[in-house]
Amino acid sequence: MPLSEFPRPMVTVDVVIFTLQEQDLQVLLVRRKHPPFEGMWAIPGGFVGIDEPLETAALRELEEETGVRDVRLEQLATFGDPGRDPRGRTITVAYLALLPPGRTTVRAGDDAADARWWPVRSLPPLAFDHDRILACALQKLRHNLRCMMALPELLPETFTLRELQAVYEAILGEKLNPHTFRRRVLSADLVEKTGEIRKEAGRKRKLYRFRHKL
Amino acid sequence: MPLSEFPRPMVTVDVVIFTLQEQDLQVLLVRRKHPPFEGMWAIPGGFVGIDEPLETAALRELEEETGVRDVRLEQLATFGDPGRDPRGRTITVAYLALLPPGRTTVRAGDDAADARWWPVRSLPPLAFDHDRILACALQKLRHNLRCMMALPELLPETFTLRELQAVYEAILGEKLNPHTFRRRVLSADLVEKTGEIRKEAGRKRKLYRFRHKL
Repeated sequence: MPLSEFPRPMVTVDVVIFTLQEQDLQVLLVRRKHPPFEGMWAIPGGFVGIDEPLETAALRELEEETGVRDVRLEQLATFGDPGRDPRGRTITVAYLALLPPGRTTVRAGDDAADARWWPVRSLPPLAFDHDRILACALQKLRHNLRCMMALPELLPETFTLRELQAVYEAILGEKLNPHTFRRRVLSADLVEKTGEIRKEAGRKRKLYRFRHKL
Repeated sequence: MPLSEFPRPMVTVDVVIFTLQEQDLQVLLVRRKHPPFEGMWAIPGGFVGIDEPLETAALRELEEETGVRDVRLEQLATFGDPGRDPRGRTITVAYLALLPPGRTTVRAGDDAADARWWPVRSLPPLAFDHDRILACALQKLRHNLRCMMALPELLPETFTLRELQAVYEAILGEKLNPHTFRRRVLSADLVEKTGEIRKEAGRKRKLYRFRHKL
């Protein structure tokens, strides 16, 4: 059988995008306008053009459906279980992104009937296998954090160690010991002092910045 | 245009599999029997069946082409640049695996004219974008190591800290300070003492095992 006659799967991209609002980890979801799973909430995404690079497709779909643009994507994983899409074999390449707290305005467009941020700890039922993709994204985000990788999108240019700890706690969903946290962050060379001081509740706190922007 | 008429890409899987031989990091490559890139060396892999899960396809292709089986796969990344395959748009899902040092016998089969281990520091020219995939695999392996993730495949059940350090040095391609290494490994709770001692060159060395098997 010539190569051109083998049946081919469909390929899509999805973008799991998180932000922090009031120290609460949130994810951007869209409500589907069309079948399958019409009316259900889903991770923004769609089909890859036949000549379109994967990351270009991911950025295009994100902007078309939610209005969000200018984000840095990290490839998360590819999900291809037969049966995950009732329309036929569909393999999806999922991406992870973080949005700075001040840039979270969204507007639904294209195939999305609605678009909004949902707190990760209370999500609606999701279309397709999107609950599995979201769980994987959360695991990856927590892994990045535990490996002490910088998350510059979620913090201002300079910050106190207490602010950094609050971001960690929001994402990990647990309280951390300040002494252990301070020791681990400093020994990992993740941040450096700016030399500046901020007064907070009558105390002087040193300001830090990430040593390496990703 | 109905969904069924949109042009669809081809989807393949590839498996980058490493081992250690004489403290040298090696990767398994196959020589291609057919065009494109006939006669060139490549990462083992091939087309995904229309009803076949991605990981099943990866394990099948690895065994068909090299005889290697019973390995644990970790999904590495998906590569889909238009133009990476002269036959048409092809998106490949790449996997990473490690093979224990004692299990490295291979035999070429299926689409492979030859199969052998190559030292990572002196590779032949590779087909497709496989040099890029391999570079990504190496980066991931080193990342896993730096994040102090256990690599139980590459070590015996129990080992000395010097043996563990030798594995790290082979993969990172650099010498490590034994004191710093010891402190980091122990503080990361990666390993635990077995209570046994091994005599080596007249000195007693404590034996360790990984705390959590992955």
